[in-house]
Amino acid sequence: MRITIIGSGNVATHMAAAFKNAGHGIVQVYSPNLQNAALLAYHVGAEAIDNLDHINADTGMFVISVKDDAITAVARALAVHKKLIVHTSGATDLNSLLAFTPDAGVFYPLQTFSKVREIDFRSVPLCLEGAGDEILAQLKQLAFTISNNVYTVNSAQRKILHLAAVFACNFPNYLYGVAQHLLAQHQMEFGMLRPLILETAQKVQEQLPGAVQTGPAVRNDAGTMNAHLQMLSDMPGLQDIYTLLSQGIIKNNNDVTANG
Amino acid sequence: MRITIIGSGNVATHMAAAFKNAGHGIVQVYSPNLQNAALLAYHVGAEAIDNLDHINADTGMFVISVKDDAITAVARALAVHKKLIVHTSGATDLNSLLAFTPDAGVFYPLQTFSKVREIDFRSVPLCLEGAGDEILAQLKQLAFTISNNVYTVNSAQRKILHLAAVFACNFPNYLYGVAQHLLAQHQMEFGMLRPLILETAQKVQEQLPGAVQTGPAVRNDAGTMNAHLQMLSDMPGLQDIYTLLSQGIIKNNNDVTANG
Repeated sequence: MRITIIGSGNVATHMAAAFKNAGHGIVQVYSPNLQNAALLAYHVGAEAIDNLDHINADTGMFVISVKDDAITAVARALAVHKKLIVHTSGATDLNSLLAFTPDAGVFYPLQTFSKVREIDFRSVPLCLEGAGDEILAQLKQLAFTISNNVYTVNSAQRKILHLAAVFACNFPNYLYGVAQHLLAQHQMEFGMLRPLILETAQKVQEQLPGAVQTGPAVRNDAGTMNAHLQMLSDMPGLQDIYTLLSQGIIKNNNDVTANG
Repeated sequence: MRITIIGSGNVATHMAAAFKNAGHGIVQVYSPNLQNAALLAYHVGAEAIDNLDHINADTGMFVISVKDDAITAVARALAVHKKLIVHTSGATDLNSLLAFTPDAGVFYPLQTFSKVREIDFRSVPLCLEGAGDEILAQLKQLAFTISNNVYTVNSAQRKILHLAAVFACNFPNYLYGVAQHLLAQHQMEFGMLRPLILETAQKVQEQLPGAVQTGPAVRNDAGTMNAHLQMLSDMPGLQDIYTLLSQGIIKNNNDVTANG
């Protein structure tokens, strides 16, 4: 398939590479910053453009992978070419494309990407939505050429996935940083925590989080929790976080106990 | 070395196995529950006992791996044998052993253990403290027979590590459960999030958390954050968590920007 990539950020970069590696042709890469477009275009053998007036209409699909609030303007500009348009956003409704074209879909990768880090794209969950069965079938076929984890997800579910990803990825990463900060205050290095962080994520690859919860809150160990709050006494923001998350763990545990 | 294990929980189980695999002899395993003691003793070729009066004094070291509030009573009972005593607790001071014997140390594994899950013990950080240089040197030598990650950590630092582990392990696992709950409410499976969770932990194996933070808060994307809070409107507890953690990310980001 001939594919045009609109955007040059983390998602655009990894998705363009995955398409290219699967044998698809990348026609053009667009970015308002020509240097960014050129860098990605070079890697995937495409033409770089910084002006949507220079779009090559001889393509099979436009993949819009730009900031959420820029999707509408780009979709409006691309719709004149009467080609399939998909976006890659978790938080954006399919309707935002359908306002401009009936040939629309969503190709949302449920993963955290960094340009500097390689990723095995075949394990990335791809969450698809299509305007009609035919488009959905076409997107599925395409998706399976780059990933083994393909899901059909409607716009409401996709927004929930996007929210859940904040809890499963963005917030844990922030808490890793809190732990790093606590260690640094006492002349210890973040590296000491790396095996623990990795094992915590590996545990839930086979089990559910509730089954592997450890720590003072799940034991309802008030002595340790009070000692920890005392240690955070000059960091009230962290005290609040400690209290709220511990209460959540205790509540989960009580619910499980009450239910069986 | 001849080693006696006091306890039969997660830490005792994995540590006893690690010592055994490294060629040390496990003399006895004690648990107030004889069946628990027997199960672990069987795996490591030791004698099971449920009464501290039946301790075999022909051992090189007692490893106390019991609930924090039981350490003192056990240490008092073992001190009569005049052998090296260590505990494995992150939250307990070395002084709690020194009250009963001068031959005391700490052997704290900074990892989350489940009995049902194998772990590569050589990657487990072992945080050591000894009452004096000679004991510390002895513990170090022993530690390197089972792990490549050996640290010397005093009691104050160890308590910080224990607190940091709550932020780096217990709280992220709770948040994985929140994400699972959100998906379940909309007929989606936790498995969709597993690659994201694993990649989030893998990212910080080489980089620092602040360098790989993603999501709406670090972009200060108020529109998405407000939409997320709206989606959580019938779950005020989760709204509070969302707000606090997002504020933390925004604050971190502002501090970084202000500093450079």
